[in-house]
Amino acid sequence: MFITFEGIENCGKSTQSKLLYEWLLDNGYSVILTREPGGTPSAEEIRDFLLKNREEHFPPFSEVCLYIAARGFHVKNLIKPELSKGNVVICDRFSDSTIAYQGYGRGLPIDLIKRMDEQAREGIKPDITFLIDIPVEESFKRLKEKEKDRIESESVEFHEKVRNGFLAIAKEEPERVKVIDGIKPIEEIFKEILTVVMEKLQCP
Amino acid sequence: MFITFEGIENCGKSTQSKLLYEWLLDNGYSVILTREPGGTPSAEEIRDFLLKNREEHFPPFSEVCLYIAARGFHVKNLIKPELSKGNVVICDRFSDSTIAYQGYGRGLPIDLIKRMDEQAREGIKPDITFLIDIPVEESFKRLKEKEKDRIESESVEFHEKVRNGFLAIAKEEPERVKVIDGIKPIEEIFKEILTVVMEKLQCP
Repeated sequence: MFITFEGIENCGKSTQSKLLYEWLLDNGYSVILTREPGGTPSAEEIRDFLLKNREEHFPPFSEVCLYIAARGFHVKNLIKPELSKGNVVICDRFSDSTIAYQGYGRGLPIDLIKRMDEQAREGIKPDITFLIDIPVEESFKRLKEKEKDRIESESVEFHEKVRNGFLAIAKEEPERVKVIDGIKPIEEIFKEILTVVMEKLQCP
Repeated sequence: MFITFEGIENCGKSTQSKLLYEWLLDNGYSVILTREPGGTPSAEEIRDFLLKNREEHFPPFSEVCLYIAARGFHVKNLIKPELSKGNVVICDRFSDSTIAYQGYGRGLPIDLIKRMDEQAREGIKPDITFLIDIPVEESFKRLKEKEKDRIESESVEFHEKVRNGFLAIAKEEPERVKVIDGIKPIEEIFKEILTVVMEKLQCP
């Protein structure tokens, strides 16, 4: 079982993926929690490259290539081997983020991104995806005044496009993508998520 | 004017691109010499990532993504600005290497690589490409017993496919790609190259 969490910055997906991971672990499931970009040494190197603020102009197409390159390492060296052992894999961001951020957000051709993503996924696909949806103003409010990384420094307009991209994906694939209202209290969100996961674990 | 040099490992393209660079410089042309993967700080970071031997399995599609990502930085931050100033740009490897190595060599879909490459090139294309062709056994003979990088460590069969890939590209685009016999003496090869370049510089 492969479960992914998606959403804009500060929507709460890292918190929820961690809660689900701990719950499954406590209840005797073999489970790993991982994230994108990253998850293996090579993919984490690419993550550092991607998030660093840099002097050079960062072409949007180079960005999508790097996200997909990192996914290739992650799928091949971690996600696929874990799934084939029968373990549950929880991943904080996956393909939908690339389509939402680089496709809808940056305006790159979505059909091309999908073809590239397909190559990197090597046939695997999430069984369930939780899209934790919050308004962009809420995302900015939650972002404490820390040093922002390259993606967090983007404009409100960019993040609006990304949010709408995620919602469009959810509309296209309602069976896989469950939209969760990220404004609700953490415990309430978690209960919703757990209900969906338990249903799927019992009747896959 | 944008001139690229292509060919398998140790074919002599770095030597010839340097000779041409120095000749043009000595004869009053504004010219830069650059290479792929690399050419700008970000692209050189990706180069280091690509050539390093690593423990993890390196998926072929991640490899092509990284080459194209590096090209995006290179085109945007160096090649395009130099060309638009009217300067001559000489580049040691470019798009044809990606098609030959990752398409013909690794067997990845060539139409997909071409679409990705097109995004990274942002409309620029070499005016002349010199394919310096040598047999694979000659390439291996010239490779001194140094520490081999990840690409040089590939099999003879792989390099045969790459060589044939380059020759197939030259057949498809004979106007742009000039095949040069890399077995000839360095000075003789350089004379051939210079003749082609001077013709193009005088009647572009």
